[in-house]
Amino acid sequence: MSNEKLTLQSEDFSEWYNQVILRAELADYAPVRGCMVIRPYGWAMWENIQKALDERFKATGHVNAAFPLLIPKSFMEKEKEHVEGFSPELAVVTYGGGQELEEPLVIRPTSETIIGHMYAKWIQSYRDLPVLINQWANVVRWEMRTRLFLRTLEFYWQEGHTAHETAAEAEEETLRMLNVYADFAINEAAVPVITGRKSESEKFAGAVRTYSIEGMMKDTRALQSGTSHNLGQNFAKAFNIQYLDRNNELQYCWTTSWGLSTRFIGAIIMSHGDDQGLILPPRLAPIQIVIVPIFRSDEEKSVVMEATEKVKVMLGGFRIKVDDRVGITPGFKFNDWELRGVPVRLEIGPKDVANQSVTAARRDIPGRDGKTQVPFNTLQEEAGKMLTAVHNNLLDKATAFRESHTYDPKDYQEFKDVIQNGWAFSPWCGDTACEAKIKEETKATTRCIPFNQEPFKGKCIACGKDASEKVIFAKAY
Amino acid sequence: MSNEKLTLQSEDFSEWYNQVILRAELADYAPVRGCMVIRPYGWAMWENIQKALDERFKATGHVNAAFPLLIPKSFMEKEKEHVEGFSPELAVVTYGGGQELEEPLVIRPTSETIIGHMYAKWIQSYRDLPVLINQWANVVRWEMRTRLFLRTLEFYWQEGHTAHETAAEAEEETLRMLNVYADFAINEAAVPVITGRKSESEKFAGAVRTYSIEGMMKDTRALQSGTSHNLGQNFAKAFNIQYLDRNNELQYCWTTSWGLSTRFIGAIIMSHGDDQGLILPPRLAPIQIVIVPIFRSDEEKSVVMEATEKVKVMLGGFRIKVDDRVGITPGFKFNDWELRGVPVRLEIGPKDVANQSVTAARRDIPGRDGKTQVPFNTLQEEAGKMLTAVHNNLLDKATAFRESHTYDPKDYQEFKDVIQNGWAFSPWCGDTACEAKIKEETKATTRCIPFNQEPFKGKCIACGKDASEKVIFAKAY
Repeated sequence: MSNEKLTLQSEDFSEWYNQVILRAELADYAPVRGCMVIRPYGWAMWENIQKALDERFKATGHVNAAFPLLIPKSFMEKEKEHVEGFSPELAVVTYGGGQELEEPLVIRPTSETIIGHMYAKWIQSYRDLPVLINQWANVVRWEMRTRLFLRTLEFYWQEGHTAHETAAEAEEETLRMLNVYADFAINEAAVPVITGRKSESEKFAGAVRTYSIEGMMKDTRALQSGTSHNLGQNFAKAFNIQYLDRNNELQYCWTTSWGLSTRFIGAIIMSHGDDQGLILPPRLAPIQIVIVPIFRSDEEKSVVMEATEKVKVMLGGFRIKVDDRVGITPGFKFNDWELRGVPVRLEIGPKDVANQSVTAARRDIPGRDGKTQVPFNTLQEEAGKMLTAVHNNLLDKATAFRESHTYDPKDYQEFKDVIQNGWAFSPWCGDTACEAKIKEETKATTRCIPFNQEPFKGKCIACGKDASEKVIFAKAY
Repeated sequence: MSNEKLTLQSEDFSEWYNQVILRAELADYAPVRGCMVIRPYGWAMWENIQKALDERFKATGHVNAAFPLLIPKSFMEKEKEHVEGFSPELAVVTYGGGQELEEPLVIRPTSETIIGHMYAKWIQSYRDLPVLINQWANVVRWEMRTRLFLRTLEFYWQEGHTAHETAAEAEEETLRMLNVYADFAINEAAVPVITGRKSESEKFAGAVRTYSIEGMMKDTRALQSGTSHNLGQNFAKAFNIQYLDRNNELQYCWTTSWGLSTRFIGAIIMSHGDDQGLILPPRLAPIQIVIVPIFRSDEEKSVVMEATEKVKVMLGGFRIKVDDRVGITPGFKFNDWELRGVPVRLEIGPKDVANQSVTAARRDIPGRDGKTQVPFNTLQEEAGKMLTAVHNNLLDKATAFRESHTYDPKDYQEFKDVIQNGWAFSPWCGDTACEAKIKEETKATTRCIPFNQEPFKGKCIACGKDASEKVIFAKAY
């Protein structure tokens, strides 16, 4: 709670990002390097994210469970690519109850291995399939360079883990959950993500195919905001997840995993925020409407507070907050709630009460243009409409921003230019060495190979070899 | 899913407990000693517990947040009693990212220390108080003797942590949350708990006073099912949680903490279960009503399934499941859902359809006595009434069981007898040495000093010294 000016986005985006998180009290630094505390305002947003996703998971037939935090170190070594990917990031428990452990335990960086171990025990027959389990959990990855929400040693996520009879069903599930993520991002968070497939070098350690949703942040960098992996039979073979098929023959299952984390809060902050602070998407905002009563005398106070109570009751279906703090000016309160990104603010002063109306201000439209007078008798309906309008406007603006910063450079020289401040949607040969060279020369990586593209034949933007697909290249978080 | 006979409760209560958990698929053993996997059926019950508690926490002004899993080892050492209590139970991370850590980190066994550290940073003035935060989290305690749900290395819980201006407010909060637990236990779980104060030796490591809810299990042992601690200024002094008071003077805060864990699922199992398996309290049961369609021919099937669909729609407000598994007899299904403790079963056969009714069976009343014919047109109302009746009956039976197994022995000899198969509600001098001697001689510990008792003057049941209170003694989990 401070009325000091934020660093401007245009001046130092990264500093703006840190400041807005700390000042809006979304999160704070923890005493252990790279860890964070998610404060009540930030956690309330995560709870809304959880609710929106969990409903979608249950509607697609999934159930929740809880697998252990601690995994025998040897488990991590059973899948070759998995261990290579995660070994450098492990936190290792070597002492328990005052004794050195015979086998060290790792804190889960992800749970394919321990869940694979349990599935091998639970699954006997095709009748037991599919297994469709999700868990909401904390995981630990020992990252060296950390950022609040975007990359922390411990983070919160959901991880879905499913087992299937056929390769086709596993692929169908992988894509279904990717689409659930995209639907959530667009329709709940107003974050217009692109869905597509990851390149070989960018896929999950142990996956056959990884799909992702990618969003463009307001500094034009890409943020991978959720991933869905088709694991083929890799983990089934490493953990012996077998079933008797319809012909009574033993087969390996086909498995998937998919995850979305507290990193998504970073996507929300950087997709919508402005120089005044956060702008939260109305369907996930912990407070959708803040009411600021304004009065100077005790007489005004009693009139205004009576009206405020009435308004509060009218808006019962929304997540509202009445800011009745004393000793703080209305102007300070306006700035404070703007910083915290509350989508709609209602001001109620003596004149408003006299007119039987409130002054409503939209967070996404600064100044007078965002203000309207709303009569009490249409307030409930208008409040709903305003929140929808904010959602749509945030989505439109973020989409337009992405489109205006996505380029189709004519050659590698132009590619190098546009990638400084935007995405390149360019033909690529698919060669990992070529991809590595582009990264070295431009710092841009392949973000995804979008599903939504025309059939294509041409030459790779970097090396000139044949290319049959176009890829999004971008600097990424 | 097995129709083998369970071990009888009367034969081997402890074996019955393990079997019922594994067979009903509430939980399973994890590959790490002492850890468990909470399976979807068990986790769904925990989600219902979370919902019932979270509503109560929010109604009493609390908000949720998330503090880190990893705590610097030195933090644990700042509060003298706390470190003594928890040191033997710590899991210690010594390696991260392939490097030995300069300072080892412990996995939180509870979060007073790290939350205290953050509160010291966040709280400046009396205007910042009270701070009323809860978190839903996993914690790790390196227990040597473990039991599914009752005592596991990792468990799930909520831990509330609050900071206040005055000692009185902290005490009020501590008791408020104890009463929230009791209300939840009685009105949601039908577990008739006793509220009271813990003795000095049984209180939380670092608390000034600990209160608990205690339930009697069907083997007459006591289970501490939730605790609420008044921490006085102990943690405030250890972590420098200070505020400027209304006179602009620096003061230490008064703090509390309170927790209820997945152990409570053990309380539910052991309060209500019988030789056929679980009996789940209707308000927390993942499935409140199971519908078993019964038919022999295709013709019967189409009639029965049509009626089943209609019944399903009628019961839209309840958590229901239609068991339409093929190749499994109705008798097998009945046993299976009895094992899993579903409170009400509806059978729909051709005769039922002809009569425009269903056969309803209550899980808490075995055999014919629990069965009634319910016409379709009153089914929705009757289903609600039956679930309420099951709840009330479970609560009444558990209360009567506790009362009939709670004794007021006339001397220490009789005390030793009754404690073998019940609780003793007996005068106690309050001396820790006397308490230790009783424990050594009888294995009974002081469970709590109940609030609900008459003013008392008499002699200690064990040592004969003056006693001014009566205490519940019991063998405990």
